[in-house]
Amino acid sequence: MNHLPFPTSHGGDIYSRHVTFDFSANLNPLGMPEGVKKALTEGMDSFSHYPDVSCAALREAIAAREGCDAERIVCGNGAADMIWRIPPAFRPRRALIPAPTFSEYERALLTFGCEVVRYFTREEDSFALREDFSQSVAGCDVVFVCRPNNPVGNLAARDLLWNLIETCAASGTLLVLDECFIEFTGEKPLAAAGLPGDVILLRAFTKIYAMAGLRLGYAMCSRHETAQRLRDFGPCWSVSVPAQIAGVAALRERGFVEKTVSLIAGERAFLAEGLRGMGLKVFSSRANFLLFRCGLPLDRLLLREGIAIRCCGDYHGLSEQYFRIAVRTREENRILLNAIERCVKNG
Amino acid sequence: MNHLPFPTSHGGDIYSRHVTFDFSANLNPLGMPEGVKKALTEGMDSFSHYPDVSCAALREAIAAREGCDAERIVCGNGAADMIWRIPPAFRPRRALIPAPTFSEYERALLTFGCEVVRYFTREEDSFALREDFSQSVAGCDVVFVCRPNNPVGNLAARDLLWNLIETCAASGTLLVLDECFIEFTGEKPLAAAGLPGDVILLRAFTKIYAMAGLRLGYAMCSRHETAQRLRDFGPCWSVSVPAQIAGVAALRERGFVEKTVSLIAGERAFLAEGLRGMGLKVFSSRANFLLFRCGLPLDRLLLREGIAIRCCGDYHGLSEQYFRIAVRTREENRILLNAIERCVKNG
Repeated sequence: MNHLPFPTSHGGDIYSRHVTFDFSANLNPLGMPEGVKKALTEGMDSFSHYPDVSCAALREAIAAREGCDAERIVCGNGAADMIWRIPPAFRPRRALIPAPTFSEYERALLTFGCEVVRYFTREEDSFALREDFSQSVAGCDVVFVCRPNNPVGNLAARDLLWNLIETCAASGTLLVLDECFIEFTGEKPLAAAGLPGDVILLRAFTKIYAMAGLRLGYAMCSRHETAQRLRDFGPCWSVSVPAQIAGVAALRERGFVEKTVSLIAGERAFLAEGLRGMGLKVFSSRANFLLFRCGLPLDRLLLREGIAIRCCGDYHGLSEQYFRIAVRTREENRILLNAIERCVKNG
Repeated sequence: MNHLPFPTSHGGDIYSRHVTFDFSANLNPLGMPEGVKKALTEGMDSFSHYPDVSCAALREAIAAREGCDAERIVCGNGAADMIWRIPPAFRPRRALIPAPTFSEYERALLTFGCEVVRYFTREEDSFALREDFSQSVAGCDVVFVCRPNNPVGNLAARDLLWNLIETCAASGTLLVLDECFIEFTGEKPLAAAGLPGDVILLRAFTKIYAMAGLRLGYAMCSRHETAQRLRDFGPCWSVSVPAQIAGVAALRERGFVEKTVSLIAGERAFLAEGLRGMGLKVFSSRANFLLFRCGLPLDRLLLREGIAIRCCGDYHGLSEQYFRIAVRTREENRILLNAIERCVKNG
């Protein structure tokens, strides 16, 4: 058990290396809203107290925004906290996970002894799930789908998604839809209350509100008993006071998400065009990050200039030739494109 | 599994009721050190970034203070995070836990299907562990001992403790020593590196630095492989950026712990004397809280005056007649004693 064969690296490591521009973590380039910083500053004295175990105010605020009852919502120490509660809480024996995708599902599942069946998407399909995906559900107790998918940025087609939801409902399979980046797409998120079967939607404040350091995510469950079970499988005080304060303040922001969606759409196109102009293969993305292919060891080359990007060599189904970059501001994106261009010309 | 027979309430609930004076949470009455608040204010922009997964700077600071290597240390989202990793990481089938004690051990163990054997201490022994405690270890895979014990505040005698450590080492039993309140006692804490067998020491920043809302605790392990396994059984980013910043800043404080120990010793004696003067039975404590006995529903009576204390009716081995109070400043302690006196006189 000591050496499980899974990837453990992630983007955002600005601690063990010198990074001036971090394109390896997929955070909102607008940064944390000022209203959130203000709330944190004003609330600092309350950091002394134990957090509200039930996250009542925060769950009410989320419920109001999502248009569902607060009992369906379980807040956690980042969405990863919820991901890690799923294997012990539901004890799946076999899980279906597309590849490539976010590595924490597999890490959590394997740690708890669950068998993982990987469904490999194909480069020629732009790493999209194929129509036969639902057929792979048979015999699996849980399915994880990330939408938009990390590290590709593509969204499962609506038809395919509904087919999957219905297949899982019919077979009694728990379906986990990780929508931690959904706000960046401008796509209408799913509503947990109306979904058939046992569905857990995962959402995060981490990315859209650029508060990764505060750790705040939540699960929204189609079934109340699933929410209760997720709650049961963790310590009382998972969500810190600053995270609860920041979450409530973030949900009071008006226009922040819309402004972000618009910025990201324009800058994503700018980056994609720039990379394609260099002859690089760029995959279609709806998210605040882009996957592209390059034969050079770009991550190492760029790090010399203080620029961090995510090499995808540790994703199942990808290799060292794939890189993920966050979509940031025009100024930063220009710096990145110029730096990549220099590498490509010299390479 | 939905309705496990364990207590789930804790002190510190200032959210669902009106509390002006909180004696139900055992936090340092000096509050969070100014140096910590300053570090948090200055570090606020970094709350956007993902935390350092390895908590390198924090673990180095802890290691320097504890005089051990950083590899033995695992930081968590509060000590409770570590408590909740132990059952899945080590899969004990049977656990030995004294009663009364902190309820999260049992909650975590039962949640993961572990049988719990309770060793009841007795009021006539002031709820101290008896010399035969080590004999109860036989057949148990893990033992939890809280020192000083919550909610009593007493410390297991040194001889008994060493006997326990040696017994566990000999029988291959994992020993978890929860020292989350040890700093308040002025007692020299144990050193993880030199201990025989498989020992996990739990420590917290939560209480001594009054940063319960930030969630920060750690495990120190006698065995490196135990530390690694605790690390393996949780998400990558358990410890938030504010918690890491606050922890490093707290360890830079000079004289804060000493000042606290001295304050607490004096105020604990003041409170105990006051309660005994009212004819109430007070149990001997080395910690920043006191357990006493009173036939009145004191918690409900005091709450009418905005004072929260911890009724211990949900602790195994105690009843509604036992109450735990935090030791706070002289001014607050006077307010509490006066309020209790009014209840006792009217009662």
